[in-house]
Amino acid sequence: MQRSRQPVSVSKNIQRIAVLTSGGDAPGMNAALRAVVLAADHYGIEVIAFRHGYQGLLDNEYTLMQPKDVQHVLQYSGTIIKSARCHRFKEDSAAVEAAANLNALALDALIIIGGDGSFRGAEHLANHWQGQIIGVPGTIDNDLYGTDATIGYATAVTIAMDALDKIRDTADAMDRVFIVEVMGRHAGFIGLGSAMAAGAERMILPELQKDKPLTISALVKHIHRVQEIRGEGSYVMVLSEHQWPGGAVALAEQLDAEYDLPCRPCLLGHIQRGGAPAPADRILASELGVHAVELILQGKHRVMAGMRANQCVDVPLRDTWEKKNPLAANLLRIQHEIFNPVKKNPRRNTQ
Amino acid sequence: MQRSRQPVSVSKNIQRIAVLTSGGDAPGMNAALRAVVLAADHYGIEVIAFRHGYQGLLDNEYTLMQPKDVQHVLQYSGTIIKSARCHRFKEDSAAVEAAANLNALALDALIIIGGDGSFRGAEHLANHWQGQIIGVPGTIDNDLYGTDATIGYATAVTIAMDALDKIRDTADAMDRVFIVEVMGRHAGFIGLGSAMAAGAERMILPELQKDKPLTISALVKHIHRVQEIRGEGSYVMVLSEHQWPGGAVALAEQLDAEYDLPCRPCLLGHIQRGGAPAPADRILASELGVHAVELILQGKHRVMAGMRANQCVDVPLRDTWEKKNPLAANLLRIQHEIFNPVKKNPRRNTQ
Amino acid sequence: MQRSRQPVSVSKNIQRIAVLTSGGDAPGMNAALRAVVLAADHYGIEVIAFRHGYQGLLDNEYTLMQPKDVQHVLQYSGTIIKSARCHRFKEDSAAVEAAANLNALALDALIIIGGDGSFRGAEHLANHWQGQIIGVPGTIDNDLYGTDATIGYATAVTIAMDALDKIRDTADAMDRVFIVEVMGRHAGFIGLGSAMAAGAERMILPELQKDKPLTISALVKHIHRVQEIRGEGSYVMVLSEHQWPGGAVALAEQLDAEYDLPCRPCLLGHIQRGGAPAPADRILASELGVHAVELILQGKHRVMAGMRANQCVDVPLRDTWEKKNPLAANLLRIQHEIFNPVKKNPRRNTQ
Amino acid sequence: MQRSRQPVSVSKNIQRIAVLTSGGDAPGMNAALRAVVLAADHYGIEVIAFRHGYQGLLDNEYTLMQPKDVQHVLQYSGTIIKSARCHRFKEDSAAVEAAANLNALALDALIIIGGDGSFRGAEHLANHWQGQIIGVPGTIDNDLYGTDATIGYATAVTIAMDALDKIRDTADAMDRVFIVEVMGRHAGFIGLGSAMAAGAERMILPELQKDKPLTISALVKHIHRVQEIRGEGSYVMVLSEHQWPGGAVALAEQLDAEYDLPCRPCLLGHIQRGGAPAPADRILASELGVHAVELILQGKHRVMAGMRANQCVDVPLRDTWEKKNPLAANLLRIQHEIFNPVKKNPRRNTQ
Repeated sequence: MQRSRQPVSVSKNIQRIAVLTSGGDAPGMNAALRAVVLAADHYGIEVIAFRHGYQGLLDNEYTLMQPKDVQHVLQYSGTIIKSARCHRFKEDSAAVEAAANLNALALDALIIIGGDGSFRGAEHLANHWQGQIIGVPGTIDNDLYGTDATIGYATAVTIAMDALDKIRDTADAMDRVFIVEVMGRHAGFIGLGSAMAAGAERMILPELQKDKPLTISALVKHIHRVQEIRGEGSYVMVLSEHQWPGGAVALAEQLDAEYDLPCRPCLLGHIQRGGAPAPADRILASELGVHAVELILQGKHRVMAGMRANQCVDVPLRDTWEKKNPLAANLLRIQHEIFNPVKKNPRRNTQ
Repeated sequence: MQRSRQPVSVSKNIQRIAVLTSGGDAPGMNAALRAVVLAADHYGIEVIAFRHGYQGLLDNEYTLMQPKDVQHVLQYSGTIIKSARCHRFKEDSAAVEAAANLNALALDALIIIGGDGSFRGAEHLANHWQGQIIGVPGTIDNDLYGTDATIGYATAVTIAMDALDKIRDTADAMDRVFIVEVMGRHAGFIGLGSAMAAGAERMILPELQKDKPLTISALVKHIHRVQEIRGEGSYVMVLSEHQWPGGAVALAEQLDAEYDLPCRPCLLGHIQRGGAPAPADRILASELGVHAVELILQGKHRVMAGMRANQCVDVPLRDTWEKKNPLAANLLRIQHEIFNPVKKNPRRNTQ
Repeated sequence: MQRSRQPVSVSKNIQRIAVLTSGGDAPGMNAALRAVVLAADHYGIEVIAFRHGYQGLLDNEYTLMQPKDVQHVLQYSGTIIKSARCHRFKEDSAAVEAAANLNALALDALIIIGGDGSFRGAEHLANHWQGQIIGVPGTIDNDLYGTDATIGYATAVTIAMDALDKIRDTADAMDRVFIVEVMGRHAGFIGLGSAMAAGAERMILPELQKDKPLTISALVKHIHRVQEIRGEGSYVMVLSEHQWPGGAVALAEQLDAEYDLPCRPCLLGHIQRGGAPAPADRILASELGVHAVELILQGKHRVMAGMRANQCVDVPLRDTWEKKNPLAANLLRIQHEIFNPVKKNPRRNTQ
Repeated sequence: MQRSRQPVSVSKNIQRIAVLTSGGDAPGMNAALRAVVLAADHYGIEVIAFRHGYQGLLDNEYTLMQPKDVQHVLQYSGTIIKSARCHRFKEDSAAVEAAANLNALALDALIIIGGDGSFRGAEHLANHWQGQIIGVPGTIDNDLYGTDATIGYATAVTIAMDALDKIRDTADAMDRVFIVEVMGRHAGFIGLGSAMAAGAERMILPELQKDKPLTISALVKHIHRVQEIRGEGSYVMVLSEHQWPGGAVALAEQLDAEYDLPCRPCLLGHIQRGGAPAPADRILASELGVHAVELILQGKHRVMAGMRANQCVDVPLRDTWEKKNPLAANLLRIQHEIFNPVKKNPRRNTQ
């Protein structure tokens, strides 16, 4: 990983670049797009955007992007140039076709805003095209190595936390148990972040399930212990998707039917991708969008623009999915040992 | 139904009343409680609150409520005096026991903040107790006759609309079909209100399903027609709970697996009951809470305090569940015939 | 005022209409525009929109509006066809010019979405043009006779209430006095609605100031009384603009400097016009937009489409500014006599 | 600055500590308090809280805090143990008195949650008391050295950004100029963060004003240039408080009256301190609250618990106000040179 020093020394003569958003959309993609367009304009570079991700690259569906086109888009989620999943792009023929399209447009570089699937596509394309390829991490899952946060993650946590806050009101009023299912089938970042932020009593996350899957009886025991300690029954769980057979709906039914613990599920789904992007996502997207353009000017290739410890960095694209960002150990410790201890603590005053 | 003229001529000498919140909690219950307490204080009446609804009435779990106890509660959902469902209260023995508790506390009247189940309980109690009983409509479902809106309905619509807005961002980015499942198994008010407000393409509501259940093939046909007319694939459905076997999750799977329409579900659940109550709910709750106290002073009994055409009214408790408020015909017409027409329209310019 | 019966019997052959938004923008104007366009399309009528209000009418700046142009605009505030204030439009020459432009485009009718200033312009135009003119009430001030609510009012109240809620947190933490200045120099609707909804301790509204202006000493006395009764110092005021010399900033300084009451001001300004429109505004705008088109089909002229007691009505344009909607007497009574009594009450328990 | 390694080796026998919140309240103070109480309970330490900051320390106004007292407070702004400014605490006599009160309660340590003024008070107290004193950075201004962010900053930026987003809607509709005045008279963090996040066209911040104060003619020139480049007149400024004589109100009047640029002001004031704390503040507060307790167990004294590059650190209290965190140079560069360039750029495509 390499720290980038600012200001940028322009080392390459770049005339025209392209940008696309790919895979699941993430809040802040528009802010990243805006930053790319404004930075390119600043450096006298022309920008075209392919619509619908790699599909648009294959279909040659593109549009010229100028500052006025992105003036006030950073406050909206989604992506104005649309995104898509493109299964065909895994084939060599697709990459060859894409390379031909890129060359026909005399493009010097391509910026891919997306997640790990999109970056694999970028690497695949790089095997067939000579231009520079730069990735910008746009995914709510925060599961890319090389950046402390991905664009969209802060918003997803905010939305999940907001849902948990709302649930708490009703949970407290009725002394009930609730389950909120959040995104992140491979990584528990949204689950951990929102659970910490909302003070949830329990998290069921892929990283925790992998080592030692939670049993229903251990869960019920914990519910009873928490209720006993606090003298009231509000207990809110955060469940990452695909971490329980049948998800939140099935787990709620099980607790209700088998353990006499009336429990209601909530399945956030794609709500987590919408609404006004959180400031952290807009600012991160602004910095990384500019950084991506400046990485091109520095001659970088096959790297992702990332942010580490408040510094713009770049990492090899391949690293972004081959290496892993672990969940924050200190947050896990606080949540599991201090705030909602699973085991009895002899020192503890209030047990 | 009787219109109430203000100001109130105090005709009864009331010394002490009780209040409780019962059934599913609704945003605005705290505002109603506050209004009851402040109005009672204004008229020199003492207020006690039973906690946990009818259960607290049976358990004699109560607390004195003074203005300072409710000073800044109107901005929170839930209910600070807790709510509960109490199945035992249907029995005669329970009503007799409750009456004894009420008499032991020398109560002149009881205000029940809740929905139709709670009002049935109130009627049941009225058969065994001589004090005045007044209902205040607190339920997100808006399914009580005698009031244009129930306390909590406006907030639920706001939350469901906000979820639909968020879904639209991602739906537009990916040209996808989405289903948002909302509350209201017996009444489609939340579904209709949020669908109108968010511009959803389709509603599946109990009132519509009862007459002519939507078939999957008719739904698919409509999706294709809308996509064809608009040239893009974003299509958002609002589904009231219990209106499709297996709910939003099952319907999404069916569309995806059988009709090649990738579709994602979202199950709002109790999120609809939380968060900051909407202004309409707080204002309605404030008026009806005061009105409930003044109805007691007017000697009214077995009635619900309601709001009709911006006027405080009272209706017999029994009417509130025996009669029905229909969905607004004009909204249904607009939504179904004008905004998202199911049938082709020969006059229409854009088909 | 005339109640409209649905469904509409189409009595006129209308081919092309125009729409514009005028004066201060209001949340929900886009929803009204959408409804006009979709309804016109439903009836086979062509719609053009003039941009920048009456200025665009004079400049002949217009655009054809089709359903796809308004598909997903109802979730945004502002107006996609822009608004403006046009001082020149008061002159006869302007109205004559506008009439010529309307005739040149062979327009049958014109829909004006705006407030009282815009409706005066509409009446002025009607003196020089033969086509039908219909008003749709779009203003946050809620100061138009003939409709229970104007489009934008519900959102403004929501935003002001949200600001008051935020202020309450800090006011409670510091036991402080705060003033929030809201819009409505001629009508206290936003002030009253937000004060009721947020439980403000005091309102300074045009309607109240007109009869008996609040003196600073009476205000200070009330602050001290409330603090004494409650035993804590959080006191939040809502001030309508132009109701105190120098506004909230000056009043805060006066309380701080002269009465040793540390007080902080907040000036909401145009925040009240932005953000996601409240559901009530979107639904009202949808109904009134459709209603406006149907009023044209019914041959109506020089009327405003309004909503009274949940019924679509129409009222002469001139009435909308010549007659007045009073503030809700019951809300004023509750706020001033019951929730935050100005005078001592001998019956009151807690004084 | 010293990095803290987890898990903590408990080196001291601590029995009872105190905590207080001081100075202007900040969103997340409750979350920090909760973390302190839960962590202390975990380590078998008793916690008492002084109410109303240092004033409560002098008045011996305290309360025992147990986990149940802080169970669900992290979702609220303000501080449940109240805060205050205490001018008398600067005197030696006050510190002596406070020390006596702390000793009388047999306290081992005191945690101060507040900003730089509160930390100066802590240092002052440390000269007169032998117990350990630990600071936790709670201020929206983000102006403390030794931590990447203070508790409350993320929320303030979110609220300011949200206001700017709302303003943009109306600014775009009317092609107008707006000024939003935000907090931060000594540091432009809120101004910079919210301006970046909302895409504001101009920032007037203390750090920028100090070097080269903006003149009204330079501002007007920039407004005209931006309007010319974009072909539309929406221009939004963020003004830190005390950076223009008379603030936003005066600047708006000046632009309107002297330069024919109709402009409207908005003064956010203490709104920036309220509402639901942002997730970043809640999580930071949770980590730093726990960290503060663990620093006590490690025998640390006169330090602030901070977060640097995602690591818990501690810094001498004195450093927190004597050293300065600069504004992020890269964000300033992006905002001033790339997104809203003040000077013409010959390379730029769109000028």
